[in-house]
Amino acid sequence: MKIALAQYNYHIGNFEFNTKKIIEGIEKAKAAEADLVVFSELSVCGYPSGDFLEFNDYINKCYKAVDEIKEHCSGIAAIVGAPDRNTLRKGKPLFNAAFFLENKEIRHVYRKGLLPNYDIFDEYRYFEPSVTFENIDFKGKKIALTICEDLWNLNDNPLYVGNPMQILFEKGAEIMINIAASPFSWNHGYTRKKMLAENAKRYNLPLLYVNQIGAQTEIIFDGGSMAISSSGEIIKELNSFDEDFVILDHDELDSQKGILPDTKADDRNKISNIYQALVLGVRDYFTKLGFKQAILGLSGGIDSAVTFAIAAEALGNQNVLGVLMPSKFSSDHSLEDARQLAENLNSPHYIIPIEEPTASFELQLEPYFKGLPFGIAEENIQSRTRAVLLMALSNKFGHVLLNTSNKSEAAVGYGTLYGDMCGGLSVLGDVYKTDVFRLARFINQDKEIIPENTIVKPPSAELKPDQKDTDSLPEYDILDKILYQYIENRLGPSEIIQLGFDPNLVNRILKLVNTCEYKRYQTPPALRVSLKAFGMGRKMPIVAKYLG
Amino acid sequence: MKIALAQYNYHIGNFEFNTKKIIEGIEKAKAAEADLVVFSELSVCGYPSGDFLEFNDYINKCYKAVDEIKEHCSGIAAIVGAPDRNTLRKGKPLFNAAFFLENKEIRHVYRKGLLPNYDIFDEYRYFEPSVTFENIDFKGKKIALTICEDLWNLNDNPLYVGNPMQILFEKGAEIMINIAASPFSWNHGYTRKKMLAENAKRYNLPLLYVNQIGAQTEIIFDGGSMAISSSGEIIKELNSFDEDFVILDHDELDSQKGILPDTKADDRNKISNIYQALVLGVRDYFTKLGFKQAILGLSGGIDSAVTFAIAAEALGNQNVLGVLMPSKFSSDHSLEDARQLAENLNSPHYIIPIEEPTASFELQLEPYFKGLPFGIAEENIQSRTRAVLLMALSNKFGHVLLNTSNKSEAAVGYGTLYGDMCGGLSVLGDVYKTDVFRLARFINQDKEIIPENTIVKPPSAELKPDQKDTDSLPEYDILDKILYQYIENRLGPSEIIQLGFDPNLVNRILKLVNTCEYKRYQTPPALRVSLKAFGMGRKMPIVAKYLG
Repeated sequence: MKIALAQYNYHIGNFEFNTKKIIEGIEKAKAAEADLVVFSELSVCGYPSGDFLEFNDYINKCYKAVDEIKEHCSGIAAIVGAPDRNTLRKGKPLFNAAFFLENKEIRHVYRKGLLPNYDIFDEYRYFEPSVTFENIDFKGKKIALTICEDLWNLNDNPLYVGNPMQILFEKGAEIMINIAASPFSWNHGYTRKKMLAENAKRYNLPLLYVNQIGAQTEIIFDGGSMAISSSGEIIKELNSFDEDFVILDHDELDSQKGILPDTKADDRNKISNIYQALVLGVRDYFTKLGFKQAILGLSGGIDSAVTFAIAAEALGNQNVLGVLMPSKFSSDHSLEDARQLAENLNSPHYIIPIEEPTASFELQLEPYFKGLPFGIAEENIQSRTRAVLLMALSNKFGHVLLNTSNKSEAAVGYGTLYGDMCGGLSVLGDVYKTDVFRLARFINQDKEIIPENTIVKPPSAELKPDQKDTDSLPEYDILDKILYQYIENRLGPSEIIQLGFDPNLVNRILKLVNTCEYKRYQTPPALRVSLKAFGMGRKMPIVAKYLG
Repeated sequence: MKIALAQYNYHIGNFEFNTKKIIEGIEKAKAAEADLVVFSELSVCGYPSGDFLEFNDYINKCYKAVDEIKEHCSGIAAIVGAPDRNTLRKGKPLFNAAFFLENKEIRHVYRKGLLPNYDIFDEYRYFEPSVTFENIDFKGKKIALTICEDLWNLNDNPLYVGNPMQILFEKGAEIMINIAASPFSWNHGYTRKKMLAENAKRYNLPLLYVNQIGAQTEIIFDGGSMAISSSGEIIKELNSFDEDFVILDHDELDSQKGILPDTKADDRNKISNIYQALVLGVRDYFTKLGFKQAILGLSGGIDSAVTFAIAAEALGNQNVLGVLMPSKFSSDHSLEDARQLAENLNSPHYIIPIEEPTASFELQLEPYFKGLPFGIAEENIQSRTRAVLLMALSNKFGHVLLNTSNKSEAAVGYGTLYGDMCGGLSVLGDVYKTDVFRLARFINQDKEIIPENTIVKPPSAELKPDQKDTDSLPEYDILDKILYQYIENRLGPSEIIQLGFDPNLVNRILKLVNTCEYKRYQTPPALRVSLKAFGMGRKMPIVAKYLG
């Protein structure tokens, strides 16, 4: 049986666009004489559709799209993902479903049984988990079609009570197909491959896996669809971070030689994968919103430099405008580094000094500040003055402002709300500072784009004389390790201290993280590249006291 | 049997505070010779605890608190809410549980069966739904203890597959107790009472209901715990918007005369309830974060006036600082109205003109703006200049900035990001403009606090000459009706048009709402008073295209 895997980039709620794309995939597969073409989870509407799923009108549009698509399914069958109304009159109003289309009809509807509801996932918000599962008879074979999480309930991870694939296996499954919307994180690819290979081996069946590709605001779907033999070897892996389309002969999968997935996690490609993910994330944010140009403040520091380079790669050098906004505390080398960066990238840049508007603010406030010493208020005025200038240019010319904060500073609140924390999209908000340095080295691997001085100088906000990040924070290699244990691993203070970190430091850092929830609540979406990013996947109450 | 209902205000994650409060409640009930004292859902840690529930350390602290509390349960039993680890080795790691404490022991653990996962609720994120339910034998009676949502699966609302109370009833329940964390919205009280009365009648048993009170960031729990007779009459209703403690004799509930709940929704008290909820919301935000003073910009308009009056009520007149920041476009009457308001409230106010810093920005931008006409960019500079001044004062003196946006403008994006959309807390962000007017009248019911001119003049942002809101928006009474259908009722465009609204207007408004998701993503938490507020209860993808 010839099966096409169509790994596409969908636009949430853009039914015209998604339907056209799916129909083109069907026609392409038909032309190549495939028997079946498979699209990813909720491909008809895009994943995740959020609360649009609560609109009857939206669900009607999904059905209408499926109806339009099925008219193209003659001489070929197709599997598309779409919500399906729950007609049982009990439980949530929808199922997360896969429609099997054949002879211009809906031949079968498979309904997802295991609904992820952790981190960025909230499928119980919309869907009822199915408890009945049937194979699909097609061309004399029984196809076990499942959706994403349905395959994730392995013995060592009993997050769910049921196991849909086990049921389908016991009912005589012969072909395993899984359609997914499984997002990227730098340490997730290994887990995903291992899980898929384990399923193939356990049921002794080849497995075809079609994942979504493309960024949906902060969530980056990396694709990497694949075909796995029943011995757990990867026979074919589709592109990561790009659309792809492949036709495979299912009957020949087990006679081919593939590659066994790694037996342990491997982060050799961590930085290059993060880089590609961020480029895709920036590009899709702009494309899907209909914008072309970005603007950002260039401080001469490493965060804005890496953000600039990634944006230039994503949007084209000429489409990214860097704005240098020196104050009386800016060092000459910072201005020069920033200018050099723009020149290296062949991107436009403006220089707009902030001394005058800053002084004007201070003058207006003088009657109230009454000679109180220079402090956080004055530091923040500078940062906010820069934000006003950047947003004015953004409003005037239509550039989207990119935020340049990294995960380390977002974690401890080392940034100015309505100042450098502004922007439509945070490019590095899920990248720890130590990895920002690695990204800079990666960007410079062939030639110097980011000036060496930007990489080697001690990080500084330059908001007061001779300021260094380490005046108020520990060295980033220590800070990032503590943050990782707290944020990604969710260890409490005593557990982190047991790992050998200084107790006072741990308590101080964790308290900073907790008391800055109010700041992060108002920051832009940050492209997610880890298993625990700030934003929709981490929900912390602002008024809580824990550790505070 | 004498049962005490303890309706308290908990602080999330503040185990010391919550434990002390619960123990005091137990001692108070014991002194009054109660047999049992009942606290609300997840009282030990506070509701909602968010992702703190994913920390082992946090759960350990919950158990430790329960252990400390149970030592006080001799001569009395107590019901407290706390998470309980799932030891079944299948499903989510926790249950949302109620601990029945007696003789210094955990006598019984009841685990919630129906987990709300809609709007602001996401209990499937943390909890496994229980499928087994047992009554508690206590003093010769069978107590059917349930938790909040467990009672909400009535016949006409089959959101869930199971029905815990039905099971407990069939096992011989004699006393019904429900502990809850059921938040306020202006049109929810009726539904809640009706649902509770229906349960009492269906099972022909009196029902004791203990709800949480107090605001947790944007979610306001209004209390209103109650005792209902088996005929569905409300025998006793505890305070709304305040703590309360009542002891009742369960055996006498059915012999008392009560009040049947309304048979249909009644919004007579809508505005006074919203007012009380907002006052509580502001007060608890400050108290729980340890702040005393607020600052806000006073434009002379109605939104800032109502926000000011509410904050003054919540925090004390002297603790709210109003800042008047006139520009060249500000009318004399606006300045005078704002000044009069501060005077009527006997609150401090500053006057800081913005012409100079605004002009300074325009001067710096002149080389780039090159004589382009005055537009949104210049309007926003004014709004952002005000934000910089307010935040500078906030940073210098520790006042928390209050946001003054209303729901109508938040919906259509009629506000400046990093300008008037700033603030730690949005007081009116879930109140439509038409209700802001009603709140103003309510505030003025005894004497004129908000100047009459502020209420009667046409709303204007005053960011350009002779600007009126109606230059770019329809009249608010039309706008709010369309928004209500889209936001609260989740009707699609064609459904709203069928209600009789102008098709072009409907399409324009809905498109505005959708394309402004990026703005709302970065706004402060807004006190929730409706069944669908912006924020954690409404999740919309930014890059979506639906209607866009």
